[in-house]
Amino acid sequence: MMKKVLIAGAAGAMGQKAVALVNSLTDVELTAVLAPHATADQRAQLQLGPQVKLYQDRAQIDPKVADIWLDFTVPAAVYENVRFALDHGMAPVVGTTGLTDEQEAQLVAESKEKHLGGVIAPNFGMSAVLLMKFAREAAKYFPDVEIIEMHHADKKDAPSGTALSTAKLIDQVRPKHESSPDEVTTLDHVRGGDYHGIKVHSVRLPGYVAHEQVLFGGTGEALTLRQDSFDRQSFMSGVKVALEKVLDLDELVIGLENIL
Amino acid sequence: MMKKVLIAGAAGAMGQKAVALVNSLTDVELTAVLAPHATADQRAQLQLGPQVKLYQDRAQIDPKVADIWLDFTVPAAVYENVRFALDHGMAPVVGTTGLTDEQEAQLVAESKEKHLGGVIAPNFGMSAVLLMKFAREAAKYFPDVEIIEMHHADKKDAPSGTALSTAKLIDQVRPKHESSPDEVTTLDHVRGGDYHGIKVHSVRLPGYVAHEQVLFGGTGEALTLRQDSFDRQSFMSGVKVALEKVLDLDELVIGLENIL
Amino acid sequence: MMKKVLIAGAAGAMGQKAVALVNSLTDVELTAVLAPHATADQRAQLQLGPQVKLYQDRAQIDPKVADIWLDFTVPAAVYENVRFALDHGMAPVVGTTGLTDEQEAQLVAESKEKHLGGVIAPNFGMSAVLLMKFAREAAKYFPDVEIIEMHHADKKDAPSGTALSTAKLIDQVRPKHESSPDEVTTLDHVRGGDYHGIKVHSVRLPGYVAHEQVLFGGTGEALTLRQDSFDRQSFMSGVKVALEKVLDLDELVIGLENIL
Amino acid sequence: MMKKVLIAGAAGAMGQKAVALVNSLTDVELTAVLAPHATADQRAQLQLGPQVKLYQDRAQIDPKVADIWLDFTVPAAVYENVRFALDHGMAPVVGTTGLTDEQEAQLVAESKEKHLGGVIAPNFGMSAVLLMKFAREAAKYFPDVEIIEMHHADKKDAPSGTALSTAKLIDQVRPKHESSPDEVTTLDHVRGGDYHGIKVHSVRLPGYVAHEQVLFGGTGEALTLRQDSFDRQSFMSGVKVALEKVLDLDELVIGLENIL
Repeated sequence: MMKKVLIAGAAGAMGQKAVALVNSLTDVELTAVLAPHATADQRAQLQLGPQVKLYQDRAQIDPKVADIWLDFTVPAAVYENVRFALDHGMAPVVGTTGLTDEQEAQLVAESKEKHLGGVIAPNFGMSAVLLMKFAREAAKYFPDVEIIEMHHADKKDAPSGTALSTAKLIDQVRPKHESSPDEVTTLDHVRGGDYHGIKVHSVRLPGYVAHEQVLFGGTGEALTLRQDSFDRQSFMSGVKVALEKVLDLDELVIGLENIL
Repeated sequence: MMKKVLIAGAAGAMGQKAVALVNSLTDVELTAVLAPHATADQRAQLQLGPQVKLYQDRAQIDPKVADIWLDFTVPAAVYENVRFALDHGMAPVVGTTGLTDEQEAQLVAESKEKHLGGVIAPNFGMSAVLLMKFAREAAKYFPDVEIIEMHHADKKDAPSGTALSTAKLIDQVRPKHESSPDEVTTLDHVRGGDYHGIKVHSVRLPGYVAHEQVLFGGTGEALTLRQDSFDRQSFMSGVKVALEKVLDLDELVIGLENIL
Repeated sequence: MMKKVLIAGAAGAMGQKAVALVNSLTDVELTAVLAPHATADQRAQLQLGPQVKLYQDRAQIDPKVADIWLDFTVPAAVYENVRFALDHGMAPVVGTTGLTDEQEAQLVAESKEKHLGGVIAPNFGMSAVLLMKFAREAAKYFPDVEIIEMHHADKKDAPSGTALSTAKLIDQVRPKHESSPDEVTTLDHVRGGDYHGIKVHSVRLPGYVAHEQVLFGGTGEALTLRQDSFDRQSFMSGVKVALEKVLDLDELVIGLENIL
Repeated sequence: MMKKVLIAGAAGAMGQKAVALVNSLTDVELTAVLAPHATADQRAQLQLGPQVKLYQDRAQIDPKVADIWLDFTVPAAVYENVRFALDHGMAPVVGTTGLTDEQEAQLVAESKEKHLGGVIAPNFGMSAVLLMKFAREAAKYFPDVEIIEMHHADKKDAPSGTALSTAKLIDQVRPKHESSPDEVTTLDHVRGGDYHGIKVHSVRLPGYVAHEQVLFGGTGEALTLRQDSFDRQSFMSGVKVALEKVLDLDELVIGLENIL
């Protein structure tokens, strides 16, 4: 049976990639989009087939129109969107950022009550998702670990969200670990940031795009995980995986790596 | 309860590292060694406590002496050793190479009959083991993959056993995959070896020790797994994991990555 | 004194980048372009100021119009273009490919006669140019070397031109070197291509763009040079260097690395 | 003509490697050693041929005994040793650390007066030496640069001497450079150490030995230099180069990279 998908934010940059993705899949069907500023004469430009319903207002959406609510909207809209999806029996797949920890907790609680699956992922790029998954697994065997992330010079914040998420995942599982208290630095801060004893280093250089390395060391050996994102197009590989799996879940899951 | 361990090949280079490892663990106890050429006056030199039984001949071994048979012997001895262990209710953990595919199949069959656990691992280095495990998992999402292994210039054979094992693991899981039939090479063999469509490249240079990279590429992104072995001491991290888990298994497992 | 530049092929993709580059520099002035298919009403679109002469036909060019002939045209035109430049006292800077070894030799000979400088570079990306320069220098101290180049899956030929150029440069300088004649491969071709004993490995994966590594090994140490090209825009950094230096040369030089 | 070499500190770990090196070369001859605690019956053990003079006291040394003074002694002795060499017409090649900037300046001044060559190198590993040389050269074209050095977990100080030397060399040549003043960090110190705007990151992990990377970024491209030292044996490649070149110099040079 074909899974029916509604895309919220279908006119945005990521939304348009999502439309193209769903149009290209054989077991998923685009049945509706929510695009507040789109008009009927933009249908072709937005790659919407004649059978796709175009909504400008969330309130008008017929809940039967889709099984999955795929959200690439904006921080201001995402919480209400996901609540709407859960309230109306649609499984949310959310690539929009901006949910607070409290909002996420509320949405997860509601999804459990309704036994409704869903996925919220800050990063749908499969290379980043697998890197985080593998890092968490390797840290059980290699508690000594540091993270280096490298981004283009225009990125103004550091560390990257993915690097911080990776540090948090590792922190949850790695055995108790003593860092070196008697280290001496002759250049301040050269040992980088410190997240619960996990050192994090941020590199910013022109030419680079978005890259992350996790370095593990043990007696006589080392393990390195690296991912490179060259293009936001890479997000769609993870969206595809989420669309395949979301209807088999019975609660909202945070992090694509948790359903692989 | 303390697990009792017999080490076969305790006087060899790897066996000696194994003795040191078991001596350092708190939930495992070294109760016996098999060391055909060792004499009683070498006990101290071999790091054997007074309570450890020293056997020079397999036939003399009392099967009750140990729960686990840890084997670092030689290709000519390993098959009969593992059969002996299984026949006498000891769970084999085998780091010795040289078993044929047929011998492995027979031993697995026997272990199943007796519901006896065991592990045979060509490589106990956790960085290599995790690399293989992760590579197999990533290949489900990234069917485009190539392997580069790099070793010291004195290694005369190529590719390395680990690289070939990695290719086999990937081949078992990756989606059907078309390679580029219309590729043109202006320098023969520049595209490397080909294992069922997976390209394998072997580098041999002085200074290098033993390293392997698995490179995955997808639309707009890349994932790279890398492991470096600088020292055979690294094997012991995997032996420790095997000793922890082997008594919970109920059959002989090939590849440490399959019990993580 | 301002250097005057004519750009041949100013309407092409690389030519347009070159126009933007020259317009942005303070010691170089764009005085003319050769663009056979461009018309006067395209001047603004081609970023040509009112003082820039627009030629559609090489024969009409006034030799006094420029000191430097910057060529981003097509293989069929480049030889005659460079001869024209040399014949008329303009120093050629050539990014167009397609010259044969014989043609290059003739042009160099003519430039020497006329004491006229010039640069022909197959690759103007400074990361690639420096990689080649450094590789040639390192090979004097590290004769053991292998090359790995990695490109997107759509590249149909292997190895890349830069990799082959690097191998040639290394071959010219490295001390006599014995490769391992008694190597055994259990997977055919796994040791890669062989250029005079220098192994070359080509990787082709989606997601990758254009990357090259040169690996040197010596007793107890290794040196690795790597360059990544993410965008053809990178070529312009080398064009800038060539424009700065070409008028100080007194012959045509092949390879930007030879004038750094 | 054979160059005659005296090795000071010939009984130490590095000194012994130096003795083996000189014994293996065809154009250099070991004529004397200074080894305060060595006795005549240790000659064989120290690999000293019958013709090699063994001095226990610097004052006894006959200045005619050697052309080159190769010093692998201790910080407390090195300054007086190099002065002695210069005073007596021997060209010093110094691998001992511990000279202050003032002492180095004095020794250089004296060498210039006497037109006597010499080399003082904190690091004789050719991979590190070439890395520093190439980094300085690349920085002219790529002013955006960061350094990552990685060492074993037992190294208590950070950054490494080589990383700091690299930063200093780059700082001397790179064009004026503005760093990002409006950067926001959500994890303190994550951007690493800062040497005149050059970011330096130190990684400390078990398994690692001694490694350094210099990362350059430019529009659409990146250049990475990496060196790995696995073994102190690697120092001897640079000592060989210094022995070859030192008699052609007419002053004391700091840094092997300055005579390549």
